[in-house]
Amino acid sequence: MSMKKEKPLILLSNDDGVNAKGLNELIRALRGLGEIIVMAPDGPRSGASGSITSEHPVRYYKVREEEDLTVYKCSGTPVDCVKLALHAVVPHRPDVVIGGINHGDNSAVNVHYSGTMGVVIEGCLKGIPSIGYSLCNHLADADFSALLPYIRRITEEVLEHGLPAGICLNVNFPDVAEFKGVRICRQTNGTWEKEWKVCTHPRGGEYYWLTGQFVNHEPEAVDSDHWALNHGYVAITPTQIDVTAYSIIKDLKNWKLDV
Amino acid sequence: MSMKKEKPLILLSNDDGVNAKGLNELIRALRGLGEIIVMAPDGPRSGASGSITSEHPVRYYKVREEEDLTVYKCSGTPVDCVKLALHAVVPHRPDVVIGGINHGDNSAVNVHYSGTMGVVIEGCLKGIPSIGYSLCNHLADADFSALLPYIRRITEEVLEHGLPAGICLNVNFPDVAEFKGVRICRQTNGTWEKEWKVCTHPRGGEYYWLTGQFVNHEPEAVDSDHWALNHGYVAITPTQIDVTAYSIIKDLKNWKLDV
Repeated sequence: MSMKKEKPLILLSNDDGVNAKGLNELIRALRGLGEIIVMAPDGPRSGASGSITSEHPVRYYKVREEEDLTVYKCSGTPVDCVKLALHAVVPHRPDVVIGGINHGDNSAVNVHYSGTMGVVIEGCLKGIPSIGYSLCNHLADADFSALLPYIRRITEEVLEHGLPAGICLNVNFPDVAEFKGVRICRQTNGTWEKEWKVCTHPRGGEYYWLTGQFVNHEPEAVDSDHWALNHGYVAITPTQIDVTAYSIIKDLKNWKLDV
Repeated sequence: MSMKKEKPLILLSNDDGVNAKGLNELIRALRGLGEIIVMAPDGPRSGASGSITSEHPVRYYKVREEEDLTVYKCSGTPVDCVKLALHAVVPHRPDVVIGGINHGDNSAVNVHYSGTMGVVIEGCLKGIPSIGYSLCNHLADADFSALLPYIRRITEEVLEHGLPAGICLNVNFPDVAEFKGVRICRQTNGTWEKEWKVCTHPRGGEYYWLTGQFVNHEPEAVDSDHWALNHGYVAITPTQIDVTAYSIIKDLKNWKLDV
């Protein structure tokens, strides 16, 4: 499974856009590890999930170029960025695809809404070892400095070992100054509640802002990613692209489904 | 697990928009089975995946009202539609959330891009039995008539049996006049290739349309959803919201991840 080469090719994207601090901190964490190519959205795409652009065409532009670093911005979604980078700008197949560093938590069920994990799942679907990095702090000026050595270490391990086909990593960092260590976790079971803030339009009628509170259904589960984050650990949740619910196949075969 | 009541409450959405033929055919398939509420996007949202709207507020409007049918349109994504319907318009918790009928195939890895399955996964995350229906024909005037009795039957079975927590159904129909039967399947392993059509802008520069060819990595796998569709069967792929890759947790614990 080793993908080790003289100089690894590292493809980065995110969902907070090309100007986000998290992306630039990710570049800082990885400089020197290989050749870095960035294809990031030209503005914020938080909550983009695995969305793709089908109704409009997509464009991209070079933003800057330094030794072993080329940055592009793209008019599409985070997934579009990965697809377009692989088609149009990489000199050869990347050794790793990385999403982040996200300004905000992508643990638990948030994986289903996350544009950062959209990047990562797309890299994984293309057969490339892929990692998402997120910090549980959504502020634009969040402090990412404690994350950088961990990000470098985890990325080095992925470059060294590779990842099995169809499996990627969702790495979340608690918003603390010092981490207690790293835990390998499973996705926490929970639900978003109180999701809408209602406002009244100046010309009448109501509009709704998506917000909400995450309710953890298993706060005591020590193997869950939320437990790790709540206790000061870096949470690595390995994530798979096969979403088949194998456990129910046998039961479903007994349903009366023919007409 | 039974959710049976006197008159089930059925919440519908889709990603092709409130005016799509597939949605109206879905209503036709389900009329008489219960009270139907539709909250659908006000235009096409193909490829919306599980995306949510975070940068703008969202609005909704009533479109029409008949006995046991109320239709709303919403400015947001398919997932927004489900979240907003549950918050703002349903008289009580729905018995089932249904996405579709999608104009196009949502089998195999397409589940990761699908706005239809965004609807379904959101219903499932909210603890409601949820089903996605898709036809392997993306044309606006596709013929859905052969699907209707199957959709009614499958929906009745879900209303009767419920579904386990965290599991929903992804139902795809082949584009044939008559189905050979129903198969319970797993997600096919494959990749999208040749994904971009490049065009030149009248004022110079290139733009890119997302397109592509799906390459099935296991065309002979008789338990896969693509095999079923390619052989004329209705493919039901049970789908889960826990995407943890449990198989790799033990190996990852041996990685050198501390710094």
